[in-house]
Amino acid sequence: MKIGFIGLGHMGAGMAARLCDAGQDVTVYNRTAARMQPLLEKGAKPAASVAEACAGDVVFTMLADDAAVSDVAFAPGGIVASLTADAIHVSCSTISVELSGQLARAHGRMQQGYLAVPVFGRPDAAAAGKLFLVAGGEPARLERVQPLLDIVGQRTYPLSQQPEAANLVKLSGNFLLASLIESLGEAMALVEKGGVDRHAYLDMLTSSLFNIPVYKNYGGMIAARRFEPAGFAAPLGQKDVRLLQAAAEELQVPLPFAGILRDRFLELRAHGGENLDWSAIGALAAKGAALDT
Amino acid sequence: MKIGFIGLGHMGAGMAARLCDAGQDVTVYNRTAARMQPLLEKGAKPAASVAEACAGDVVFTMLADDAAVSDVAFAPGGIVASLTADAIHVSCSTISVELSGQLARAHGRMQQGYLAVPVFGRPDAAAAGKLFLVAGGEPARLERVQPLLDIVGQRTYPLSQQPEAANLVKLSGNFLLASLIESLGEAMALVEKGGVDRHAYLDMLTSSLFNIPVYKNYGGMIAARRFEPAGFAAPLGQKDVRLLQAAAEELQVPLPFAGILRDRFLELRAHGGENLDWSAIGALAAKGAALDT
Amino acid sequence: MKIGFIGLGHMGAGMAARLCDAGQDVTVYNRTAARMQPLLEKGAKPAASVAEACAGDVVFTMLADDAAVSDVAFAPGGIVASLTADAIHVSCSTISVELSGQLARAHGRMQQGYLAVPVFGRPDAAAAGKLFLVAGGEPARLERVQPLLDIVGQRTYPLSQQPEAANLVKLSGNFLLASLIESLGEAMALVEKGGVDRHAYLDMLTSSLFNIPVYKNYGGMIAARRFEPAGFAAPLGQKDVRLLQAAAEELQVPLPFAGILRDRFLELRAHGGENLDWSAIGALAAKGAALDT
Amino acid sequence: MKIGFIGLGHMGAGMAARLCDAGQDVTVYNRTAARMQPLLEKGAKPAASVAEACAGDVVFTMLADDAAVSDVAFAPGGIVASLTADAIHVSCSTISVELSGQLARAHGRMQQGYLAVPVFGRPDAAAAGKLFLVAGGEPARLERVQPLLDIVGQRTYPLSQQPEAANLVKLSGNFLLASLIESLGEAMALVEKGGVDRHAYLDMLTSSLFNIPVYKNYGGMIAARRFEPAGFAAPLGQKDVRLLQAAAEELQVPLPFAGILRDRFLELRAHGGENLDWSAIGALAAKGAALDT
Repeated sequence: MKIGFIGLGHMGAGMAARLCDAGQDVTVYNRTAARMQPLLEKGAKPAASVAEACAGDVVFTMLADDAAVSDVAFAPGGIVASLTADAIHVSCSTISVELSGQLARAHGRMQQGYLAVPVFGRPDAAAAGKLFLVAGGEPARLERVQPLLDIVGQRTYPLSQQPEAANLVKLSGNFLLASLIESLGEAMALVEKGGVDRHAYLDMLTSSLFNIPVYKNYGGMIAARRFEPAGFAAPLGQKDVRLLQAAAEELQVPLPFAGILRDRFLELRAHGGENLDWSAIGALAAKGAALDT
Repeated sequence: MKIGFIGLGHMGAGMAARLCDAGQDVTVYNRTAARMQPLLEKGAKPAASVAEACAGDVVFTMLADDAAVSDVAFAPGGIVASLTADAIHVSCSTISVELSGQLARAHGRMQQGYLAVPVFGRPDAAAAGKLFLVAGGEPARLERVQPLLDIVGQRTYPLSQQPEAANLVKLSGNFLLASLIESLGEAMALVEKGGVDRHAYLDMLTSSLFNIPVYKNYGGMIAARRFEPAGFAAPLGQKDVRLLQAAAEELQVPLPFAGILRDRFLELRAHGGENLDWSAIGALAAKGAALDT
Repeated sequence: MKIGFIGLGHMGAGMAARLCDAGQDVTVYNRTAARMQPLLEKGAKPAASVAEACAGDVVFTMLADDAAVSDVAFAPGGIVASLTADAIHVSCSTISVELSGQLARAHGRMQQGYLAVPVFGRPDAAAAGKLFLVAGGEPARLERVQPLLDIVGQRTYPLSQQPEAANLVKLSGNFLLASLIESLGEAMALVEKGGVDRHAYLDMLTSSLFNIPVYKNYGGMIAARRFEPAGFAAPLGQKDVRLLQAAAEELQVPLPFAGILRDRFLELRAHGGENLDWSAIGALAAKGAALDT
Repeated sequence: MKIGFIGLGHMGAGMAARLCDAGQDVTVYNRTAARMQPLLEKGAKPAASVAEACAGDVVFTMLADDAAVSDVAFAPGGIVASLTADAIHVSCSTISVELSGQLARAHGRMQQGYLAVPVFGRPDAAAAGKLFLVAGGEPARLERVQPLLDIVGQRTYPLSQQPEAANLVKLSGNFLLASLIESLGEAMALVEKGGVDRHAYLDMLTSSLFNIPVYKNYGGMIAARRFEPAGFAAPLGQKDVRLLQAAAEELQVPLPFAGILRDRFLELRAHGGENLDWSAIGALAAKGAALDT
């Protein structure tokens, strides 16, 4: 199968490298061309344009946000204009439910395939092929690309035949993580003001009921009050809450925790937190309690 | 060491049984005497009164709430009046920070020892000696009872020399669990209204990022909409949020998630949920979204 | 001065009629032409297109939402394309801060004037010239149209030289009203469940500390549980909360009450309230408390 | 009628003075005896004890909180022990629904009358006889004291035959005011960050839709960022939110706005606001938005 891969940021680079290392025929494209070099060394071919990356059977996209995906997909010479009939666009970016639906309809009109396959995991998991993949779209199309998904992820969850439902699931996952961060932030502020060492507290939590990496990693950042360098920057977390709320408004689902999270990100940004990791919202409860932070 | 054990409910019965099985010299007391029988068969001696259970070196209490503990501790013939100097009261109940502080001061005035050792775990963990114990109080006293704690729990976390700080930690742990329940409830309502099967969704979550029993158990109850029989009844969860908020008010710590949880329990109770498991608050997001529940 | 008036809904019709009755030279345009008839009888001239309504010195717009205003303003033959240099667009609709800023820039590029003059008041106030007008834009332009504003409103408040700031103020006013509605709804649910008649309660409030029409009108609807016919429909209230939150996100201002209101409108809509007056969110507290409503 | 009056703070002094000025036979008592002097000059008689103030047909209490009322009522030599059968206790303090219920039962057991008559208004209104009175209790008893109530207030609202319902109404009124303060604080933070002068903004609001003293007074304090001296101190406002939430928990009524207010008071107190007027919570939205305050 001939594969195109568009978007070689921290996540995309690792995923594309996995495909190259597995001996696949991969053509890569990135707006900043220098980021293609490491992939070329692994045998990938360079594309000079989005259209060139769309010449094969399947094209992956892994981009930062709606604007980037929309541009690459809908611009003249973009994916929708360039992909051959029956070829498949595998969209891995965390984008809005609305844009994913637009992509599904646009590709459908061109007899092209469209799968939404957002991922859970950080850059190191991407590089190691350990991502979790949430898939939405037609089962027959998914079956065709499954061997490729098995290279980039440790497991694929086909959750809906509607592609955009996979994007909703991805957003909901980030909502669960942000809720976890906020709840840890509140709990730590409370016990710390009550005289308990927050590091010892976190150690207790994560060696008993909450013994998984997400509690350890985010809890550790909150306990250490160290939010740089950002693994996932606050503006991205804020964006995902915004997209979640937009989907919830469309579906008419009240989400009280999401409302709290929204305001946390606004407070963080108002005070200059745009370069911090999104877990920095976990320090705001301590600030509200006038603890030195 | 001569041990008294007061309170043989679901949790206390399992803990006391562990002590008996380990060959300890245990005298048990329970208001409803019939609940003592299984322990007597394991070699425990019956006490006819609270005072009789206080004749030894250490007395455990494992009771339902502040009222029960306060009654057993402060009534004439109660623990404070009966315990010998230097004997230790090990208070395992989930009680308010305020009452725990009162107990600390009362025992201190009598030269008695007081340790707050609330537990994490359900009745089956209690019976299996798999509880996690959070300990507050003087290290020397804790050292004396540590061999007993090692019989009832798999690990003890000494988090503060102030006994009541351990109660605060326990309440914060239940707050983390209730937040987890609420966040799952919101996420499931959203994806379900977006067309995703909630069981498949939960399976995805709990086999990837959230692979621990608390997500599986509570998530499973929410997905199944089955909240009976109650493992931990809604009124108890509500009580713990109330005690958490009382402590937060005393310490001046704003806790926005706790405010949401408080209202969830009120809504659940207003609609007749007093016999349901506390995870039933996880179904209220679906109700707010007009999903059939 | 030659005046165009676009948008003859409940509000616009009353405002245009005031201008006609005052002897002004008014050309009216409405997509549904039949709504122009009553104005023609008052001496207005009919316009066959938006462009025709833009032939004079000033054009008012009073339309339902961003989409309607955007269409009328930016389409070929729209206001921006049709207005002569130095003529003034007086935008009275409740629209987003963002769209108002776009209009300001577009008119500026064409050397046209742009004033945002959103209004407070209901159709009867519009018909009686009793509206309150919030004005944003250049003082010199405002001075030129002030005689016209004095015909449609009882007072004009020039609050900023940035036109879009007036739209922000309008949205904030609706936020204050929605907060008032929600607070009344919560208070009434509480006292009613405590045994107090809600009509007598409202009468007490509105004859003592809260003796103004907004408390009486909205409180009366909540007490009567009568939300039809809608004076201001729930979807419009919801839209304004959305626009408020969008502006707050842009300006980085956390607004906890707005978050609650957002969810109230979602709950109302999820349960089929799209035809109700926006004050119907004031009945949701009673519903949460399981009061018969 | 022989009247006792207990509690000569800012409110009570004005109310007692009104009764004296009207020629009533008033015996006053205050823990700090010096505060009785101005009343004696108006013809009041001094009581050396609570019991002495209870020798007549009716005794008013106007005290700071539950603790003060409970002490004066239930202590040996207190009101319940001292009042003659059929005499009436008119309780004007803002106290908990629970305590008011206890008082009702205690007085009932002694065949004494009990009316809860909390008041709306500030010290100047008390001195001028302009208070609004909310009355709960038996109509026949209320009728007996109505001539006295007409001296201290401009209008009495008999809202329930259950005395404690009047206390609930009083708490709900303070909740409405606190909600008004918070909503104004949020709105002002938003428009100020959007470039609008907050004084001009407030002037617009209070000369149009919100033309009543409570918006003007609280809005003025928020706009001026001047919260001292406190007309009604933050800890008292916080206490009333606490009592409101306690009543709402008892009645099972979720109140989302009250949850926000609770956290606002905690944040204010955590940062040292105990001497500020309660309207200082109206400045916290600006702080969250990183506006200079």
